[in-house]
Amino acid sequence: MATSPESEHPIKAYGYAARDTSGILSPLTFSRRATGETDVRFKVLYCGICHSDLHVVKNEWGFTKYPITPGHEIVGVVTEVGSKVDKFKIGDKVGVGCLVGSCRSCQSCASDYEQYCDKQVQTYGFTNFDRTHTYGGYSDHMVSDEHFVLRWPENLPLDAGAPLLCAGITTYSPLKYFGLDKPGTKVGVVGLGGLGHVAVKMAKAFGAEVTVFSTTSAKEKEAIEGLNADHFINSKDEQKMEAVRGTLDGIIDTVSANHPIAPLLNALTPHGKLILVGAPEKPLEVASFSLIMGRKLVAGSNIGGIKETQEMLDFAAKHGITADIEVIPIDYVNTAMERLLKSDVRYRFVIDVANSIKAE
Amino acid sequence: MATSPESEHPIKAYGYAARDTSGILSPLTFSRRATGETDVRFKVLYCGICHSDLHVVKNEWGFTKYPITPGHEIVGVVTEVGSKVDKFKIGDKVGVGCLVGSCRSCQSCASDYEQYCDKQVQTYGFTNFDRTHTYGGYSDHMVSDEHFVLRWPENLPLDAGAPLLCAGITTYSPLKYFGLDKPGTKVGVVGLGGLGHVAVKMAKAFGAEVTVFSTTSAKEKEAIEGLNADHFINSKDEQKMEAVRGTLDGIIDTVSANHPIAPLLNALTPHGKLILVGAPEKPLEVASFSLIMGRKLVAGSNIGGIKETQEMLDFAAKHGITADIEVIPIDYVNTAMERLLKSDVRYRFVIDVANSIKAE
Repeated sequence: MATSPESEHPIKAYGYAARDTSGILSPLTFSRRATGETDVRFKVLYCGICHSDLHVVKNEWGFTKYPITPGHEIVGVVTEVGSKVDKFKIGDKVGVGCLVGSCRSCQSCASDYEQYCDKQVQTYGFTNFDRTHTYGGYSDHMVSDEHFVLRWPENLPLDAGAPLLCAGITTYSPLKYFGLDKPGTKVGVVGLGGLGHVAVKMAKAFGAEVTVFSTTSAKEKEAIEGLNADHFINSKDEQKMEAVRGTLDGIIDTVSANHPIAPLLNALTPHGKLILVGAPEKPLEVASFSLIMGRKLVAGSNIGGIKETQEMLDFAAKHGITADIEVIPIDYVNTAMERLLKSDVRYRFVIDVANSIKAE
Repeated sequence: MATSPESEHPIKAYGYAARDTSGILSPLTFSRRATGETDVRFKVLYCGICHSDLHVVKNEWGFTKYPITPGHEIVGVVTEVGSKVDKFKIGDKVGVGCLVGSCRSCQSCASDYEQYCDKQVQTYGFTNFDRTHTYGGYSDHMVSDEHFVLRWPENLPLDAGAPLLCAGITTYSPLKYFGLDKPGTKVGVVGLGGLGHVAVKMAKAFGAEVTVFSTTSAKEKEAIEGLNADHFINSKDEQKMEAVRGTLDGIIDTVSANHPIAPLLNALTPHGKLILVGAPEKPLEVASFSLIMGRKLVAGSNIGGIKETQEMLDFAAKHGITADIEVIPIDYVNTAMERLLKSDVRYRFVIDVANSIKAE
């Protein structure tokens, strides 16, 4: 862009941004567009810190353009609506997740799978249709087409519900799509972090018998007592891994560190499904026989569409599902990122944006 | 076994067997059990040569016990039935595929998925429930529990239909299970050999638009003119592979040589399915992002259950589907194996057992 972040749009905005691959966030004054006919503008109240925020601020996936303001687990209160908006009014509590745009006309969009639209516009670090950049929820306010704005259920906490906009839909969607949402289904969850702990709650709410796999034995108590999981297995324990051979209908693998998947495939029943929602850097090694001999599958799943995200929020509200969070002020964000890198959080940081952000 | 192949059972049998990892087949006198209450005994008329026969006679999968008589695409005529057999009578044309036994009580068996029963007894090279070895269809006759015997459709050729008992069900089953059997579905078939050419015919019969991928440009004419495929792509041609990016609903990959699957995953639409029915020796390298970003999956599939195999035979008869075959006498089998190794057959050898086998 020829213009600077501050001047490309008429409305002043304020947030925290990383400027380089150090990933260190500091205050940024930028701008957001005027409220269009179908736009909803809202004051950001809370924003979760997703592990992908950490990857992107450090450009670990290779496509970051600086400055970058992360945040895609955003809850706020509507301050202005466009003339053609009918879903929302001023004062409504709303959420925005990972997407703020898509082509609205391809087969994916027509099927409510905006997350697989080739022209999707992600909430931060993407180029919008007007060629301006998108800025995420580590900021004072947001503006988005109403299609990508979620209605916030009345009894869903604003702070502890925020992470559902990424961690919730990322785990809810594959459980539904791959048929792991039936009572009695035996579901494994690999990794007990931001995604994993929500996956356990979602699967339990569907009535599944849940086995947590982690390399950290200390998490057994958290899994069983804290999250009501049925079983815990240290995935480094070969004997215990062998003991669950052929028993699980599906596994949601939330781990983005490189790890072997052969023992997970062994744990599946015939026709069992291993679903990746974490993205290890190295390619997975998959022995073809391990798939063929039980008609097993390895799949990936990426968040969910807007319609399904609304369904997930309503489901979470009905079943009392929230993330376990640690609320922080925005000036703690760099420390939070360091702690997140060490998995030193149970399980999600949520920034109390409204009460801690101040325009300079 | 303490007893020799010739004496462990009361009924003399005669076939061709490999004795060592040379894989060279020569005459073997062995024995088969007396006809039990639920058994069907039949004279072998034709037996297809499957690529896995070649792997097993040379012990390339590591579990071969010699002497081994291969053959699991067996068509014959009933010569005797047990007192409780009601599905068949003497003179009926029948088939036996890859399985002659399973536990009949596990969840897989109860769901008509005998091929995923942990206690399955394969047609050759396996240990039966009575601890004797199983011998395949490169032999004068067979005996099997009627549950594993297929009714041969009247208008299905005995010789060209035989390979359907493995190659047919191996491709039909995943097309059905993974929902690639709907008219208009865009299906890729990788590899144009014994399995691949039947996969093309099955997919076309379901009404799919079929794209054949092969590394051999010479096969384009065979694919389009001979098999009525809609498109042909040399999978080494990066430009052509790029041109089909995101277009296929599913791919049946029949190739058992090591090959990259990233270009195949690229060719899939969102929610697309790559199904392995060939088993490369080296583990596949699967980039997690390539699955996650389109909710794609890599799966395996192994033959099919008995009920589905009958359904497949009836479907093949209705749609006039047979394998393209070269009929050979049994004393040509070693030459045939050599030619098969060089893919020098269009597309399946079938042994005319009844007219060429002679007891010594």
